[in-house]
Amino acid sequence: MGLKLEAAELAAFLAREFPEVADDFEVLSAGEELAMRLKVGPQHLRPGGTVSGPSMFALADVAMYLAILSRIGPVKLAVTTNISMDFLRKPEAARDLIGTARILKLGRVLAVGDVLIRSAGSEAVVARAGLTYSIPPDRAA
Amino acid sequence: MGLKLEAAELAAFLAREFPEVADDFEVLSAGEELAMRLKVGPQHLRPGGTVSGPSMFALADVAMYLAILSRIGPVKLAVTTNISMDFLRKPEAARDLIGTARILKLGRVLAVGDVLIRSAGSEAVVARAGLTYSIPPDRAA
Amino acid sequence: MGLKLEAAELAAFLAREFPEVADDFEVLSAGEELAMRLKVGPQHLRPGGTVSGPSMFALADVAMYLAILSRIGPVKLAVTTNISMDFLRKPEAARDLIGTARILKLGRVLAVGDVLIRSAGSEAVVARAGLTYSIPPDRAA
Amino acid sequence: MGLKLEAAELAAFLAREFPEVADDFEVLSAGEELAMRLKVGPQHLRPGGTVSGPSMFALADVAMYLAILSRIGPVKLAVTTNISMDFLRKPEAARDLIGTARILKLGRVLAVGDVLIRSAGSEAVVARAGLTYSIPPDRAA
Repeated sequence: MGLKLEAAELAAFLAREFPEVADDFEVLSAGEELAMRLKVGPQHLRPGGTVSGPSMFALADVAMYLAILSRIGPVKLAVTTNISMDFLRKPEAARDLIGTARILKLGRVLAVGDVLIRSAGSEAVVARAGLTYSIPPDRAA
Repeated sequence: MGLKLEAAELAAFLAREFPEVADDFEVLSAGEELAMRLKVGPQHLRPGGTVSGPSMFALADVAMYLAILSRIGPVKLAVTTNISMDFLRKPEAARDLIGTARILKLGRVLAVGDVLIRSAGSEAVVARAGLTYSIPPDRAA
Repeated sequence: MGLKLEAAELAAFLAREFPEVADDFEVLSAGEELAMRLKVGPQHLRPGGTVSGPSMFALADVAMYLAILSRIGPVKLAVTTNISMDFLRKPEAARDLIGTARILKLGRVLAVGDVLIRSAGSEAVVARAGLTYSIPPDRAA
Repeated sequence: MGLKLEAAELAAFLAREFPEVADDFEVLSAGEELAMRLKVGPQHLRPGGTVSGPSMFALADVAMYLAILSRIGPVKLAVTTNISMDFLRKPEAARDLIGTARILKLGRVLAVGDVLIRSAGSEAVVARAGLTYSIPPDRAA
């Protein structure tokens, strides 16, 4: 598997195309899997210090998106068509979350993968997501 | 089906327990189904005026949560255990979203339902979610 | 919505293309929704008279497939890419199951819908499925 | 992680409790993950030699069920409450399928895991399933 975009290039792409969320995330590594940190701040929390569901959704979605781009290059129009998430445990209070994305299929029109989310420094899986992306046919453009 | 909480009571519960997001939402009606509005603002948008995935996730989640509470009363500890979402169409630019929640099962420990999301004033379904909630055993407390 | 295939034509298509399962199913109606009966026999049962999960999966899958074909005509190559099922209640012992399929999106390359499954003669939902089909680009062929 | 049931005991449990399907399956190994073979026969095939969706569903479901039992002992009443499957590639014609089950959470009332399905002798993932099981409260009985 050759990478078309390395971790630093993915971070630059995110900062350029999605400035409104880029500061929340950090690309930790790209390769066979892609690892991503959600820098948890007050805007991601619910009462009791729990990270909100939408914040975990956002982490899963952006981790898979960048994992796909690392393989096919910068395709702005790839869109999520399906996501299935299981919430397994309460994340640890106000600790960053780490998402690890794995691609299971990278087809011509569909890409499928899954993401495991853990609290930073912990092995226990907090949430699991399976995601499908639709890749536009004119992706070379 | 008798309601334990009417629309106004659900709105008050949301404002009291989830002040950080309550202003984004409006309970339109509660009954056989529950209808909820996401008041779309700049914080929900992506480039091109599209409402973000996490914002749609949040709408589906809160609509189903309040639909369950309308039947069983104010149970703060009910938690989402699974959500499966299909994203079908781009929502219309910067228009509010309406989520309509339907309960398919309300059991002793699990509640299951689905939510359809549309742009306000449009019939086309923008996204569909199926959700499962775990209800704490001591819910009477 | 115009139908390209009516209930009798769908039944004939099923008998011709999927003879190994066609006898298990009956197309009850096609239109805005498609209703389908699984004629429950010993091969669909589990201990205690419960209909097996794979049998419910098969009912959901074939009901959505025929609902799509009722709109786009006989396309042998449409394939299921994702299915998410919630199992809500034990179906009634050895009673036929009725699946009702609803299409939420019929796009150029993807079709999305959901199916509710009930025991014949009962209103309670036994299982719910959301399904995505990939439609081959050369479907006119 | 201690195993309460080893591979041979799981196979014996399956043969005793689910005689109608036990012959279709073989427990290959149990441990951190559980591997299971679907012995593909004519009853699992669709035109063109493809293994049917319901057959893959059955493999995913039984592999996860036995993975759970390997940890908690023989609990006949554990039931699938949710399954989300992605179908990624056509399995190879009339070749056995191997399902590998991984448990992500084993709680008091819910167990969650996922299963990857491959054609025997191939690395490519044919299908992926995420599954949730409900464990009866009186499981010690």
